Amino acid sequence: MVYPFCMTMIDQISAGLQAVRAQRPLIHNITNYVVMNSTANALLALGASPVMAHALEEVEELAANAGAVVLNIGTLSPPWIEAMFRAGRAARTHGVPVVLDPVGAGATSLRTRTARRLLAEAGPTVVRGNASEILALLEDEAHARGVDSRHTVDQARAAALQLARAHQTVVAVTGPEDFVTDGTRQARIRNGHPLMARITGSGCAASAIIGALAAVQPDPYTAAVAGLVVFGIAGEMAATDLPLPGTFQVRLIDALDEIEESELRRGIRLDEKPTA
Amino acid sequence: MVYPFCMTMIDQISAGLQAVRAQRPLIHNITNYVVMNSTANALLALGASPVMAHALEEVEELAANAGAVVLNIGTLSPPWIEAMFRAGRAARTHGVPVVLDPVGAGATSLRTRTARRLLAEAGPTVVRGNASEILALLEDEAHARGVDSRHTVDQARAAALQLARAHQTVVAVTGPEDFVTDGTRQARIRNGHPLMARITGSGCAASAIIGALAAVQPDPYTAAVAGLVVFGIAGEMAATDLPLPGTFQVRLIDALDEIEESELRRGIRLDEKPTA
Amino acid sequence: MVYPFCMTMIDQISAGLQAVRAQRPLIHNITNYVVMNSTANALLALGASPVMAHALEEVEELAANAGAVVLNIGTLSPPWIEAMFRAGRAARTHGVPVVLDPVGAGATSLRTRTARRLLAEAGPTVVRGNASEILALLEDEAHARGVDSRHTVDQARAAALQLARAHQTVVAVTGPEDFVTDGTRQARIRNGHPLMARITGSGCAASAIIGALAAVQPDPYTAAVAGLVVFGIAGEMAATDLPLPGTFQVRLIDALDEIEESELRRGIRLDEKPTA
Repeated sequence: MVYPFCMTMIDQISAGLQAVRAQRPLIHNITNYVVMNSTANALLALGASPVMAHALEEVEELAANAGAVVLNIGTLSPPWIEAMFRAGRAARTHGVPVVLDPVGAGATSLRTRTARRLLAEAGPTVVRGNASEILALLEDEAHARGVDSRHTVDQARAAALQLARAHQTVVAVTGPEDFVTDGTRQARIRNGHPLMARITGSGCAASAIIGALAAVQPDPYTAAVAGLVVFGIAGEMAATDLPLPGTFQVRLIDALDEIEESELRRGIRLDEKPTA
Repeated sequence: MVYPFCMTMIDQISAGLQAVRAQRPLIHNITNYVVMNSTANALLALGASPVMAHALEEVEELAANAGAVVLNIGTLSPPWIEAMFRAGRAARTHGVPVVLDPVGAGATSLRTRTARRLLAEAGPTVVRGNASEILALLEDEAHARGVDSRHTVDQARAAALQLARAHQTVVAVTGPEDFVTDGTRQARIRNGHPLMARITGSGCAASAIIGALAAVQPDPYTAAVAGLVVFGIAGEMAATDLPLPGTFQVRLIDALDEIEESELRRGIRLDEKPTA
Repeated sequence: MVYPFCMTMIDQISAGLQAVRAQRPLIHNITNYVVMNSTANALLALGASPVMAHALEEVEELAANAGAVVLNIGTLSPPWIEAMFRAGRAARTHGVPVVLDPVGAGATSLRTRTARRLLAEAGPTVVRGNASEILALLEDEAHARGVDSRHTVDQARAAALQLARAHQTVVAVTGPEDFVTDGTRQARIRNGHPLMARITGSGCAASAIIGALAAVQPDPYTAAVAGLVVFGIAGEMAATDLPLPGTFQVRLIDALDEIEESELRRGIRLDEKPTA
């Protein structure tokens, strides 16, 4: 049985995917060196138009004209941090949605501090991280180990709700099961595949794909849910017959190109409800 | 029917490919973070020996000893710009050909300004860009959108001719059909495949491959034509049975290794004539 | 016939691989832009947990808490050099093994000088390079050409022994046949496949994999031998039926995930003896 509420969401997700392909939104990424290539290819396969740029001299110009800005602190250093603040401010001034990916928050004090400042001052529309990263935005004791999560998504739910309300943003916690909230609504997404954690840059690609959906969808909560559903189902498509991780990485790009409304409708595993 | 003029060119292209494999020229790339890995693999598959280096302390030493230098402004910042000027000057002093790839010229004033200065002062032997990028080297109104072209190759033909003559360089405009000119001769190349625009770094790989050909071929016009014919036919080989983009990217590297004279002779789609 | 001495080593290699998968050691890489993605994926496929970070503000914190630190000078610049020294010192202070990969030593004076200083002052546990790079650590006349070796592994054996003794480190020279020594013991490894030299980042992945083994194995000589045996046999597995280089690259990641004790026991080609 399909609830009307859910039907609405799947319709919006399908419409969002089609809009990305029709409009080819420009996604300005200030992201880490590790995933620049794979993120660009994920966005291209989905149908968006990626640009990577970090120079202080051009980030405001690009961000102001982008469909969305994605700020990812995966290999940050001071000049890049400054570029992220500038791009974030320019984006907000021009009504461009901003996705923040606090890679490794909790792993070092530089990352924790930078992620918190970006959350407070760069005004992200959506924050997407693993459970440890989201917890580290709130709690000093939430130490991560490198860039992998030490916490379950459930452990980060309260923090996600609190952050979403305090900063009027959407918070998406990803893991075996994803949790998305804007402080009022909340969704649990059970799409995706464990192989996604066996390749580098899955989380970063998820953030970029949320950016692509946010560029065509005015409600950032819906964009975040849509991005994670699309990417999760693409991951399941790529994992059919359980490839090894090198092959899986190639097929994940293939699946982002191949995915259509029919796969979304057949594959979506989403529970949504208003926050209690 | 094959014209003698064309026969000469295909002979030169084949000889160039063989010379790259025999000599393994060292190609010094100062290029963007997104494509460093894919460019290095494209050059290795073709038979060349890539090195990526951007430190001010070493670029002159490397450029002076390279077979060709490739300057790509895809993720530029001030220290990298200075490195490009130094490498360009060292290359020219030592007779090493320089390929300039003005990624995103027209998209931001930093890129437009930098690309124009590199064209004027770093003395590139070949400039390769999409139509918007080439137009932006000449016209202030030619705005690009991110790193994708907003213009057709035909729209950039006059600009290419004018730039080639003004700067005594070869200009290659790539797109669905490529246009190459040194101001006197001109060629249209109809090789390649639309899938090449669905993966990141195709244009950057084209520039690097032109660099590899320029390292073994004294005439830069012939090197640019050869590079685009070789890369275009490799793209067609990789696109056989229409793979999805992730798979296509893998096969494109395969094809650069696999391509031989027989594929070149069978696949070349080239029109050449003296400029009117 | 199997010598007891060799049995011990293959047991240790198998145990090391299992320990990496069980403990998922955090490997902190300060490495070059070209291979960050492929190195991260190689480490993930093997079972380790990679993190890439270079900011002066966080390298000591990460290195101190890592299972191993890998310093790779492939695209170095002054701020990254400083980060490498800091990470190296923090690692040694906390008993964390350090692998140094002197990419391009001998190709430019910056690289030669930096590699020598890192060897002398950052206290690496293992140094892994091709023959030209290892020679360049000792001899001013050993010029490399780009990042490819101009010398045979045999030509670098005496230098490896001398460096190992002078710096109380393990030196691994890789090529068609690898040579590993700690100044007392020495091993020749004849695993691997020529296709590994046709893709970028093979050497860098070897260094990172040695780091992963060093994180779970207190004897760095054994870790270096184990890393090269595991990676070499994975290369052979990936090269079955001789794929082209793009496909080979994908399969190499697959093989690092797939390799088990049985492949190690069947495939190992190792000669070990005490140094004369």
